[in-house]
Amino acid sequence: MTTVRGFFTPKTVTGASSLIPSPPWRYSGDLLTVEYRTDPDRVRELLPAPLEPAEEDPGAVALIWADWQSCGASGEELLDPVRSQYKEAFVVVRCTYRGRTYSRCVFIWVDKDFAIARGLHQGYPKKLGSIHQTRPHPYGPAPRIEAGARFGATLAAADRRLAQAVVTLREPSETNGFVNGHPMAHHRWLPSVEKGGGPALDELIESGAAFFEAGQAWRGDAELELFEAPTEELARLEIREPIAAYYRRVGVVWDGGRLLESGTSGAE
Amino acid sequence: MTTVRGFFTPKTVTGASSLIPSPPWRYSGDLLTVEYRTDPDRVRELLPAPLEPAEEDPGAVALIWADWQSCGASGEELLDPVRSQYKEAFVVVRCTYRGRTYSRCVFIWVDKDFAIARGLHQGYPKKLGSIHQTRPHPYGPAPRIEAGARFGATLAAADRRLAQAVVTLREPSETNGFVNGHPMAHHRWLPSVEKGGGPALDELIESGAAFFEAGQAWRGDAELELFEAPTEELARLEIREPIAAYYRRVGVVWDGGRLLESGTSGAE
Amino acid sequence: MTTVRGFFTPKTVTGASSLIPSPPWRYSGDLLTVEYRTDPDRVRELLPAPLEPAEEDPGAVALIWADWQSCGASGEELLDPVRSQYKEAFVVVRCTYRGRTYSRCVFIWVDKDFAIARGLHQGYPKKLGSIHQTRPHPYGPAPRIEAGARFGATLAAADRRLAQAVVTLREPSETNGFVNGHPMAHHRWLPSVEKGGGPALDELIESGAAFFEAGQAWRGDAELELFEAPTEELARLEIREPIAAYYRRVGVVWDGGRLLESGTSGAE
Amino acid sequence: MTTVRGFFTPKTVTGASSLIPSPPWRYSGDLLTVEYRTDPDRVRELLPAPLEPAEEDPGAVALIWADWQSCGASGEELLDPVRSQYKEAFVVVRCTYRGRTYSRCVFIWVDKDFAIARGLHQGYPKKLGSIHQTRPHPYGPAPRIEAGARFGATLAAADRRLAQAVVTLREPSETNGFVNGHPMAHHRWLPSVEKGGGPALDELIESGAAFFEAGQAWRGDAELELFEAPTEELARLEIREPIAAYYRRVGVVWDGGRLLESGTSGAE
Repeated sequence: MTTVRGFFTPKTVTGASSLIPSPPWRYSGDLLTVEYRTDPDRVRELLPAPLEPAEEDPGAVALIWADWQSCGASGEELLDPVRSQYKEAFVVVRCTYRGRTYSRCVFIWVDKDFAIARGLHQGYPKKLGSIHQTRPHPYGPAPRIEAGARFGATLAAADRRLAQAVVTLREPSETNGFVNGHPMAHHRWLPSVEKGGGPALDELIESGAAFFEAGQAWRGDAELELFEAPTEELARLEIREPIAAYYRRVGVVWDGGRLLESGTSGAE
Repeated sequence: MTTVRGFFTPKTVTGASSLIPSPPWRYSGDLLTVEYRTDPDRVRELLPAPLEPAEEDPGAVALIWADWQSCGASGEELLDPVRSQYKEAFVVVRCTYRGRTYSRCVFIWVDKDFAIARGLHQGYPKKLGSIHQTRPHPYGPAPRIEAGARFGATLAAADRRLAQAVVTLREPSETNGFVNGHPMAHHRWLPSVEKGGGPALDELIESGAAFFEAGQAWRGDAELELFEAPTEELARLEIREPIAAYYRRVGVVWDGGRLLESGTSGAE
Repeated sequence: MTTVRGFFTPKTVTGASSLIPSPPWRYSGDLLTVEYRTDPDRVRELLPAPLEPAEEDPGAVALIWADWQSCGASGEELLDPVRSQYKEAFVVVRCTYRGRTYSRCVFIWVDKDFAIARGLHQGYPKKLGSIHQTRPHPYGPAPRIEAGARFGATLAAADRRLAQAVVTLREPSETNGFVNGHPMAHHRWLPSVEKGGGPALDELIESGAAFFEAGQAWRGDAELELFEAPTEELARLEIREPIAAYYRRVGVVWDGGRLLESGTSGAE
Repeated sequence: MTTVRGFFTPKTVTGASSLIPSPPWRYSGDLLTVEYRTDPDRVRELLPAPLEPAEEDPGAVALIWADWQSCGASGEELLDPVRSQYKEAFVVVRCTYRGRTYSRCVFIWVDKDFAIARGLHQGYPKKLGSIHQTRPHPYGPAPRIEAGARFGATLAAADRRLAQAVVTLREPSETNGFVNGHPMAHHRWLPSVEKGGGPALDELIESGAAFFEAGQAWRGDAELELFEAPTEELARLEIREPIAAYYRRVGVVWDGGRLLESGTSGAE
């Protein structure tokens, strides 16, 4: 009797074809974060029951660009970098669940399939996009990480630009922002394959980093623009008031999450 | 209390952000099919219990290239073709379940995110790839659909070529091959988010076209080559004996499948 | 003493590395043409001396999408279609030179390097872009070529959408439009490698198809939108009045052009 | 009388559409260099008269991966990084001209159109490719720049992998290699648009950096593999003997070159 192996599909007798290895997943990357306030109703409408808006500053949004190198436990992907490097842009809001504050990713675009698969596992609602952010560099015209340094960041999907930002660093910061600073509360949803069936999977899960290290965070300000597109609702999170922008280089390990509850989201 | 909508993620209050609309999904496309025999043990090892090898010709494999335009019920994607056009290459074998013969896709590569999402729903183990196939054309150097016409087809992923074929059409055919001619028996798998947890989703499902129309099929022969890659096992399905190659233009509607059983695959 | 060979670079002792083969270049493809009138001054400013505006209808513009398969004399690229298939969108205006009317491509985007190289040879000012157009198909939801059929077409570059059109076919047509119907008058320019030097190459050339075959042209109307971008001036050719839209499938051979004059453009 | 402007095409009345600005061009980037010896005859056959092989070590080859951010004088591209970031892999050999030693790029692949255009100006024989190299990072699994650190690098074009390397750093180095250390001697070639005409442009030019700054170079060793492809001859430069590998972060300004001679290459 045959058993097939692999953390993800395609599953085979060896497991070598799996689009992603089993956790832990390890990351080196640079985060460019732009925080602003939108209409709190625009955040509330993205939080299905039993999630509720954050009590303080419920309209706070973080739009985060990240430039990653990632791998599994063996690290072999780092030596074939088409399999480890990817970029992403994602939108985080806060919510509460059973009295605790969580962060929640409501939109996210990445540029590799292995990142999509990890997102399915972790409850990130990933699409493909084209993501760019200025990289710091010690020589030539690219910016150093220092006061006055400017970093650009852009996001496009389906051949339309969805967001662009220019961040100017001002000073070292004790934090890298507050919106993306909590454990994540995500849903994992998959519809029934049967027409008109309910959800086949409807889980509320919690997850966070198993390990985190980081350099000095920098704080600054951003010029941010969001653009309309027929299949995207990022621009619905309109910019009412800028908060701040941040730059930080980080190392992260992700090694699984925890099921909070199942079958209760009421999503249609 | 907020409800979010959308057939797939991201779910929002409007449902407009969903990566894919709800079925029916409609397709216009061209299929280039290469059938051959491999070692039946290489097929058997891809069939988790309770699936069993086909009784006749258990080593038969179809490697199929498809050049699609697809859309939901409204068809609006067809007018923004970056959202409707995609290409794919996929490997189909046959199996039996409760005495009935099924087709089963064991490997598949596509070039758009909406195709990945549909595959998750339908149990296709999709990765991103770069897929090309010659298109017939009535003028200039591209081939007509006629005896002697030659079509090339290639597949690459992670910057490595995985397969290439040159198909020469010989004559009209009553069939478009036999390997991909049955309902599909697929698994839908997602691991638990908890480290060491069992599967969160482990379904064996059946699905097939709700509607199918097609032009005259053509039969021919193929020169097919498969190449090794560190994260792919397509070449493990080594070519022992060519069967035939086919070309056909088709229209298809997919409108849901049927759950066969759940929690029984024993996949690790 | 070594001689290197190849129609284009890289040149080697065998010539096998050349990015493009020597002409003739052969094409099969589908043209989606949208003609409209802009401010004639916007056309005039794109015509360096000694070119002059067309006497009749000097503000006429054609924005053309093309979906190609192309090859050299041997046709081998057709069997490795990543080397033959490409898409383009280009803007054509008319001008006069020595009393004769010419067409002239003023902007063009393609999605392959071999197309860029051919454009350098032919005087097309090519950039890379992302180009899509609906393909006709005999089955399923994609349009047939018939009255009422609708085709979408889009153009993006540097992650920004630059143009989009929806064309509705109305009736068979005797022509495929009039703006792109003349021999092409193009410049071939390359600056001196020396700082402050004049042009190293400054040629006005004429070229056209050595062979042309085509199916029935269809005429219809278009909804066309042009979008601003910091490094593009397509939208400067603002839409004052629609003319018509056309669809046609063609086969073309290009086999060289003719030098009209050299060193006289006065381009800065 | 109209004058059009722009350093490169498309030329317009404003010059804003030019694919590239006029020099100076400024670069920040990371170089991963693998040096080895091939059959000196394979180098000689790539050197058209009047170039001659280098007197010492004429079979030395450098295969260099570079990860760049680049811009013109204003630096505006850095804030819209899709317009500044690109990657390249290129092959350098040495030659002599009038008794002086030069470096010469014989093959090069890049991933952006603006890099192709700059290459045309500078005499680099550019094609599009897919290029990746591991980036150093201070946190997480990606390597620091230190003894024992390992960097992967890969090159593909037309969906085929052409080269891959794994470099292990050993110690700080006084040099970044010797093959790419001289002024460049390049040809700028464009054929006549007229069938059977001779070259329209046939220049031997010299160029080098107008400014250069760099961090500590590191020396190490490499495992390098080259792969065959039907339109590439990189693998013809077979690896006979490894020399060394290097890693260095640099800043560069390029501001024009010098014409050495014209019309004398005898290239066919």
